Amino acid sequence: MSGRLTVVGIGPGRADLVTPSAMAALNGASDLVGYGPYLDRIPAGNAAQRRHPSDNREELARARFALELAASGRNVAVVSGGDPGVFAMAAAVFEAVEAGDPRWRALDITVEPGVTAMLAAAAEAGAPLGADFCAISLSDNLKSWGTIERRLTAAAGAGFVIALYNPASKARPHQLGAALDILAGARSPDAIVLFVRAAGTATPEVTATTLGRADPAKADMRTLIIIGSDDTRLIAREGQRPWVYTARAEGA
Amino acid sequence: MSGRLTVVGIGPGRADLVTPSAMAALNGASDLVGYGPYLDRIPAGNAAQRRHPSDNREELARARFALELAASGRNVAVVSGGDPGVFAMAAAVFEAVEAGDPRWRALDITVEPGVTAMLAAAAEAGAPLGADFCAISLSDNLKSWGTIERRLTAAAGAGFVIALYNPASKARPHQLGAALDILAGARSPDAIVLFVRAAGTATPEVTATTLGRADPAKADMRTLIIIGSDDTRLIAREGQRPWVYTARAEGA
Repeated sequence: MSGRLTVVGIGPGRADLVTPSAMAALNGASDLVGYGPYLDRIPAGNAAQRRHPSDNREELARARFALELAASGRNVAVVSGGDPGVFAMAAAVFEAVEAGDPRWRALDITVEPGVTAMLAAAAEAGAPLGADFCAISLSDNLKSWGTIERRLTAAAGAGFVIALYNPASKARPHQLGAALDILAGARSPDAIVLFVRAAGTATPEVTATTLGRADPAKADMRTLIIIGSDDTRLIAREGQRPWVYTARAEGA
Repeated sequence: MSGRLTVVGIGPGRADLVTPSAMAALNGASDLVGYGPYLDRIPAGNAAQRRHPSDNREELARARFALELAASGRNVAVVSGGDPGVFAMAAAVFEAVEAGDPRWRALDITVEPGVTAMLAAAAEAGAPLGADFCAISLSDNLKSWGTIERRLTAAAGAGFVIALYNPASKARPHQLGAALDILAGARSPDAIVLFVRAAGTATPEVTATTLGRADPAKADMRTLIIIGSDDTRLIAREGQRPWVYTARAEGA
């Protein structure tokens, strides 16, 4: 089986945050498969290249479609925002491989890493992921809310900085508030909380607040939230947004 | 104060994994400050650019030196492997700012994100970070071993995939074994463990094993270790290394 499939991370938004390796994979592909707005970010490649935009919700169907294309001999790039391995398309592709046509295991499948949202968000704010941290998706489409609660509690209790992906959507308006309530039970109301919207794009928005004051209604699908630990600090600056960082040394 | 300081992530190793934005920051800098081997990875810029290589251990002194240079009006790039915000130079720079000359707060300080080791390692293996995960540094230079134990136990118990940075060094040969022992108390001996060495370089080495069989002596400073959750799977392939991924759905 001669087909190829590359799951390509195109980073958080700005063209200059796409790695040259990812760009080469996109340019070399005969077919681009992905969520429409991600495909729209990619400059036109060679004239023969085909684009297959799809809805954002049908990840597994999209993965199967891409694998079928690759199995037919095409050189397919599955386009993913951020890093494809973090709450994005790479796991869906391998799920489809495991459950699908055994011949798909002979395909040449690779993953091109990228700058994931949490790294772009941290860079906008300073260095809030400067010590041990975890990443939790608040979407309960594929796991129970009980699991999310258990992970939030464990992470807060053990002193991790916590990055929340998918904090809110139209279908799930109340989950971020519930998550912040859980965290408030385990961490000080003065713990620093960052809302970073559109990180790594031309128009990022950074809001530094505290767990006691955070307003969950301020988050949308483009927001990445970082909950600081006891070692997360705010550096005030005259006339400018503060820097937020987490000290490398505990209790320092 | 007119100086500038950019903390630049140059990714895991390959030149084509450096973002164009990071490369532009490096090319535009009057001074490059960083660990010698990282500076050696950067192609020569303009003839007037100065390089200030240093030892890997003196992060805070290096940060202060860079801030002093910037305060003197230079355009300084502090060069960091991977992403500067993840167990790298960005937090050290902000620590130095907070404790240092108040005028440093007026400097133009920015962070250029990059592909951190865990993302490069995951991409080499498949998609092992496909669900909630955490990142823990095993170095106890700046935190107690008790804190590390507590975080390992909490993360394993709550079902996080766990990425271990700095698993071993000459000064700390026994910590990875101790960490694996702790994890063995909370997770099945069949849990999948990845040792990924030199991820994102021209010569990556991926070993998939299990918690019961993992040999801590196989890790060195260039190894990133990923401990799978109950939802992490191995896809066997004929004549080739298996793919490892974590299912997005729990218990699927």
